[in-house]
Amino acid sequence: MTTTERTWPDPAIAADLAALRARGPLVHCLTNLVVTNFTANVLLAAGASPAMVVAVEEVGEFVPVADALLINVGTVTAADAEAQRAAATAAAAAGTPWVLDPVAVGGLSFRTRLALDLLDSAPAVIRGNGSEILGLGGAAGGGRGVDSTSGSDEALPVAQDLAKRTGAVVAVSGATDYVTDGEEVVAVPGGHVWLTKVTGAGCALGALMAAFLPFAASPLQAAVDASAVFAVAAERAAAETRGPGTFATALLDHLSLLDT
Amino acid sequence: MTTTERTWPDPAIAADLAALRARGPLVHCLTNLVVTNFTANVLLAAGASPAMVVAVEEVGEFVPVADALLINVGTVTAADAEAQRAAATAAAAAGTPWVLDPVAVGGLSFRTRLALDLLDSAPAVIRGNGSEILGLGGAAGGGRGVDSTSGSDEALPVAQDLAKRTGAVVAVSGATDYVTDGEEVVAVPGGHVWLTKVTGAGCALGALMAAFLPFAASPLQAAVDASAVFAVAAERAAAETRGPGTFATALLDHLSLLDT
Amino acid sequence: MTTTERTWPDPAIAADLAALRARGPLVHCLTNLVVTNFTANVLLAAGASPAMVVAVEEVGEFVPVADALLINVGTVTAADAEAQRAAATAAAAAGTPWVLDPVAVGGLSFRTRLALDLLDSAPAVIRGNGSEILGLGGAAGGGRGVDSTSGSDEALPVAQDLAKRTGAVVAVSGATDYVTDGEEVVAVPGGHVWLTKVTGAGCALGALMAAFLPFAASPLQAAVDASAVFAVAAERAAAETRGPGTFATALLDHLSLLDT
Repeated sequence: MTTTERTWPDPAIAADLAALRARGPLVHCLTNLVVTNFTANVLLAAGASPAMVVAVEEVGEFVPVADALLINVGTVTAADAEAQRAAATAAAAAGTPWVLDPVAVGGLSFRTRLALDLLDSAPAVIRGNGSEILGLGGAAGGGRGVDSTSGSDEALPVAQDLAKRTGAVVAVSGATDYVTDGEEVVAVPGGHVWLTKVTGAGCALGALMAAFLPFAASPLQAAVDASAVFAVAAERAAAETRGPGTFATALLDHLSLLDT
Repeated sequence: MTTTERTWPDPAIAADLAALRARGPLVHCLTNLVVTNFTANVLLAAGASPAMVVAVEEVGEFVPVADALLINVGTVTAADAEAQRAAATAAAAAGTPWVLDPVAVGGLSFRTRLALDLLDSAPAVIRGNGSEILGLGGAAGGGRGVDSTSGSDEALPVAQDLAKRTGAVVAVSGATDYVTDGEEVVAVPGGHVWLTKVTGAGCALGALMAAFLPFAASPLQAAVDASAVFAVAAERAAAETRGPGTFATALLDHLSLLDT
Repeated sequence: MTTTERTWPDPAIAADLAALRARGPLVHCLTNLVVTNFTANVLLAAGASPAMVVAVEEVGEFVPVADALLINVGTVTAADAEAQRAAATAAAAAGTPWVLDPVAVGGLSFRTRLALDLLDSAPAVIRGNGSEILGLGGAAGGGRGVDSTSGSDEALPVAQDLAKRTGAVVAVSGATDYVTDGEEVVAVPGGHVWLTKVTGAGCALGALMAAFLPFAASPLQAAVDASAVFAVAAERAAAETRGPGTFATALLDHLSLLDT
């Protein structure tokens, strides 16, 4: 196992962001109803083109057109779950790379079963906080609700094991973000604690990983790209604001202002 | 009947806010799809931990874990109503204290019937605008849509009666907020008219009442705490902004900046 | 065919905005889950009263009470579609004027069929980007996702034809907005490219058209009113901000600050 650290500025990350902005990837999001708006705005600010197409009648037609897919189980209902299964299946069939965000998995059996099923459709990346990765990995996560009670470092061994078993890159968000393909571990420090005071910051980060997937050198690199870009935008936003309201607004600005 | 007035700064309210921040209560929200994001951000800014778990398959498992519950019928569908009934029942069984927000009740028969059913599960607090409290109380509320056409003072007698009949504390939002347990009436003046120009301000206030419930001295005190905290944050936000966009953003900042 | 250009300031537009603010029209919105919050805040900032009542059990009761209706198919599910059909039917029966926003129609068969059915209920205005109008008009729109790949000028001939066939005013959003009743064409230039970087800007514009419908001289005038008001608020917001986050916030402020 090698561990490296990556932060902005970094030529490879900047090149991927420049490519994202030039290409404007169509990112199909099946995400939770709390964060749809912020997720779409994060994707737009970064240069991607979000599309929330959620009906089971439509996902099979849309997934093959999209450049990447995000599935987030945060507020999943039975109808949503059906659409998410259909979307994951369509993604596997069409080769659309996709990200799984297992919000609060481990603590709730309905969504935990769903998330385990979705793993069969081979997500390129799994992104969660420490508790969620522990939950999905089968370990005893101390999670309550959707906020993490386990640090990202505690979850790292489980993340590596999960990556090896599923073939997905696993990203664990926390004070330091870790991204691993089971062998290599990349640490992305930085960001800001106010990211935990803005709902959907982690969810939007998962969507941003999807946006980088179509053209980064690897899913590992895509997850690192998104983490580093999000972290530096958060740092710049925090440096000039005083609380979570103005911080979230400034974060969108800085995502769009990053000079590649 | 005694009527008192409470505003920030107030030692008891500050102590409750300090406790809320220290404890970070997990507030389970079944709320309407217009305000999920803002509600979550208000709770986070104040120091609580929001969780929107909405599927009927999940609410029974989650309600007992949560520290408090909010049920808001603003955009309720038949599927949502089923989950809300299950959540309220689970809350009554588990002893999870909860807040009912009867958005537009009185004007629409489907949700009015639902709200009346939910009363059987003994909410700790009912929060609405004047028209909604009149509607729920069975009086002829002049409500059209979700904005109030009846002042909070007009609804006060109905609020007191509703409190006595249900055992819930009833909070009536308006230019002055009134909170009553049927006997005592507490007036919380302040706030700002721009709160009526930001969608979901009242809904978020209901969620904030839920956040205070687990450890305030009483449901009456929890409703007063939330009203006073929200009012002063709104005043400070309005004092430095010029319109509803920057106001809503600054409101989140000031909720997090309040010095206890 | 006559083509004229309209921009703010304009006495007729200002008079309609003053009337909107004085009357506070109740705008019933069945819109997509990405943009509910922003749409409601745009309506509130402009002076209207938004109400998102979405259940099939409730729309028939609410549509006749509302002053105008918006139907946006952006994230439509089968359940939503049923409610939208019921709402459109109720609007036609009650004479409630309404706006159809055919998000991503043309590219997805489920919603395309829905949108075509909804046309039977005689919307007063159809608002979309170039691709969507081309899609709805039956022409080969180059649309992918929800962002337009066809300019508003390219779609103008199809818009005029669609207006003639349906009797609706058709508004095509783009760098210049075009509004036509099939004969007259009004161009509304202005706005700002950042409107394409804020999710739901176009959707909110459709809602604003609905808000003007009840008392503008004609549906054409209502669509022009909303386009011109939105454009000037966007210009003023862009002039003082640096990115899409602060821009969206300032846009709400300027909608409320416009001096009639």
